[in-house]
Amino acid sequence: MQRSRRGQVDPFIVMDMVEEARCLEAAGRRIIHMEVGQPGTPAPAGARAAVAAALDQPLGYTVSLGLPELRRGIAALYRRWYGVDLNPDRVIVTAGSSGAFLLAFSALFDAGDRVALGEPGYPSYRQILRALSLEPVGIPTRDENRLQPVPADLDGIDMQGLIVASPGNPTGTMLDHAALKALIDHVAARGISFISDEIYHGLHYGARAVSALEISDEAYVINSFSKYFSMTGWRVGWMVVPEDHIRTVERLAQNLFICPPHVAQVAALAALDCEGEMEANRATYAENRRLMLEGLPKAGFTRIAPPDGAFYVYADVSELTTDSLQFARDILHGAGVAVTPGLDFDPRRGARTLRFSYARSPADIAEGLERLRLYMTGR
Amino acid sequence: MQRSRRGQVDPFIVMDMVEEARCLEAAGRRIIHMEVGQPGTPAPAGARAAVAAALDQPLGYTVSLGLPELRRGIAALYRRWYGVDLNPDRVIVTAGSSGAFLLAFSALFDAGDRVALGEPGYPSYRQILRALSLEPVGIPTRDENRLQPVPADLDGIDMQGLIVASPGNPTGTMLDHAALKALIDHVAARGISFISDEIYHGLHYGARAVSALEISDEAYVINSFSKYFSMTGWRVGWMVVPEDHIRTVERLAQNLFICPPHVAQVAALAALDCEGEMEANRATYAENRRLMLEGLPKAGFTRIAPPDGAFYVYADVSELTTDSLQFARDILHGAGVAVTPGLDFDPRRGARTLRFSYARSPADIAEGLERLRLYMTGR
Repeated sequence: MQRSRRGQVDPFIVMDMVEEARCLEAAGRRIIHMEVGQPGTPAPAGARAAVAAALDQPLGYTVSLGLPELRRGIAALYRRWYGVDLNPDRVIVTAGSSGAFLLAFSALFDAGDRVALGEPGYPSYRQILRALSLEPVGIPTRDENRLQPVPADLDGIDMQGLIVASPGNPTGTMLDHAALKALIDHVAARGISFISDEIYHGLHYGARAVSALEISDEAYVINSFSKYFSMTGWRVGWMVVPEDHIRTVERLAQNLFICPPHVAQVAALAALDCEGEMEANRATYAENRRLMLEGLPKAGFTRIAPPDGAFYVYADVSELTTDSLQFARDILHGAGVAVTPGLDFDPRRGARTLRFSYARSPADIAEGLERLRLYMTGR
Repeated sequence: MQRSRRGQVDPFIVMDMVEEARCLEAAGRRIIHMEVGQPGTPAPAGARAAVAAALDQPLGYTVSLGLPELRRGIAALYRRWYGVDLNPDRVIVTAGSSGAFLLAFSALFDAGDRVALGEPGYPSYRQILRALSLEPVGIPTRDENRLQPVPADLDGIDMQGLIVASPGNPTGTMLDHAALKALIDHVAARGISFISDEIYHGLHYGARAVSALEISDEAYVINSFSKYFSMTGWRVGWMVVPEDHIRTVERLAQNLFICPPHVAQVAALAALDCEGEMEANRATYAENRRLMLEGLPKAGFTRIAPPDGAFYVYADVSELTTDSLQFARDILHGAGVAVTPGLDFDPRRGARTLRFSYARSPADIAEGLERLRLYMTGR
């Protein structure tokens, strides 16, 4: 059988690092994980208790857009976090942010449409777009804009959609209200669809992140229980769409997914009431971030921008290497620390960057930083 | 913002019936559910116990293709059920069969490709294809072929892919070894990709269903824990692909889904050891089927073919109506029994057919049949 052209998407390079780290661990070596973007903590205790209590129920299909009480709970989060009144009908529960992207892209774009995204950025945007016969248009961002796109970057570029992420992955930098509004105004004036990836909202270390919904209702806003709520493997997220798009997305969701995982929806509903535990996790990340900003320069990684949110530090290592993949391998084998080469995030400039994740425990982070310092100074 | 053309897929008409039934129930009426294709039973006890025991673990992302022990367990099922030796590397764990279809269609077909499917058939094939900018090609099937496609139906039709389902939904009819082989040989000779939907395997009332893997390795075989294993809402299924397609599907899965729900994989692994409970469920369906084949003719639904598997009876009601949607509404309001108009399954002939599901308890089935008899004879 023939394979399709659009199915030939790029692999995640980080997965090769994960696998290489796994092999070293299988051989008995202890590895510090700074490569993967997932919390080391489980789902909140309240979420797990809710699942345990629900296991006697059939847990069959739910309605496609998700449990009504969960949609209401998510809408209430917009009031608590942003002071925004949100109609729960606009909230679509999805199978993680991954499910949301599939729904958003198929609801908004036809084959051949061009969708812009800032580089560096989350690699799967590009690959999901390709798999749907859409054309990703990489927008190189600038250091002076803290690696976020600005309207001037978009001038003259033919596009039907724009994806932004604030806080960004791999950078952790945010768009403030004015910067986000400038982008939204730019695309609105040009009739371009706007997708705001807000998956790292809740994880901030200074001012909170601004939601696109504070500025406009004409946006697809994507979020998830994976990061702040520490529920990566449960595969439950959500998307907020304009009112006149609800029915279109509902029909797509019915057919593409039937429904998000019922048990994960039960867990997510309870997780909304676990902010105490989530805020304790955030305090841990804040401590990890402090350790990173102190320890990375001591290891020779000096060209870093302090992240506003998420749990990543993106480092320019162009003074150290022009082959970040080999450099990441050297660090893995030499220091026993797994990191991610920038190539996943920026096909053009990622050979000279690394991403460090600080989602694990402070003890791991401290040990990883000391290992990096010893390795880099002895190199 | 503009909505895409491909996002304008048809709604599930059955969902309108579900909603109408829900409204009647909210108003205090008791409704017998013969409209939805899901078991009334929960996940097997062993699966639920495994989840309860796993709730202390982080349950983060798994590898994209699924837990290795689950892939091995599914491969072992092919030996038990079909006597087929299957390399576990070819088993891709998916977010239900829905996730498998998205992966299969994007791995196999490019925008504009034509994919054939028998009518009547599962409506989402058509809508998922459309959402991916593919063209569904409906193949009207014949009564004398028990509403399954045969090679003669495909002659001269331009297509890049063919989907078959045995047992079929809505008919419950099967393709035997010779009939399945004839279709596989036909498409192989023409270089057409073959997708075998085997989601109802395990639910048979005479001879077991034949897997495409008993005939050829050149097929995408899709199955799920939803039906036989009674785990609809958990969203976990699987797909078997040719060896030279594994890497392509892995890259797509990494980007489109990251991984199937971890907790559902834990449940599925344990469910593989619960065949006693599953076989008891099957015995219940067999009793339900007996009740249906006895009771439906007494209610005036005489033009039915005894199903080989699944839990549906598809009835030709052309002597009773030319508007199956209105007829289903009349039955819902008049008899308090929810059934599915055929329009979801066959856009051309479905206005003259109904699907009855017998997935619930025998007591419900008996009561539903008696209500149907009273309503139809008093009509």
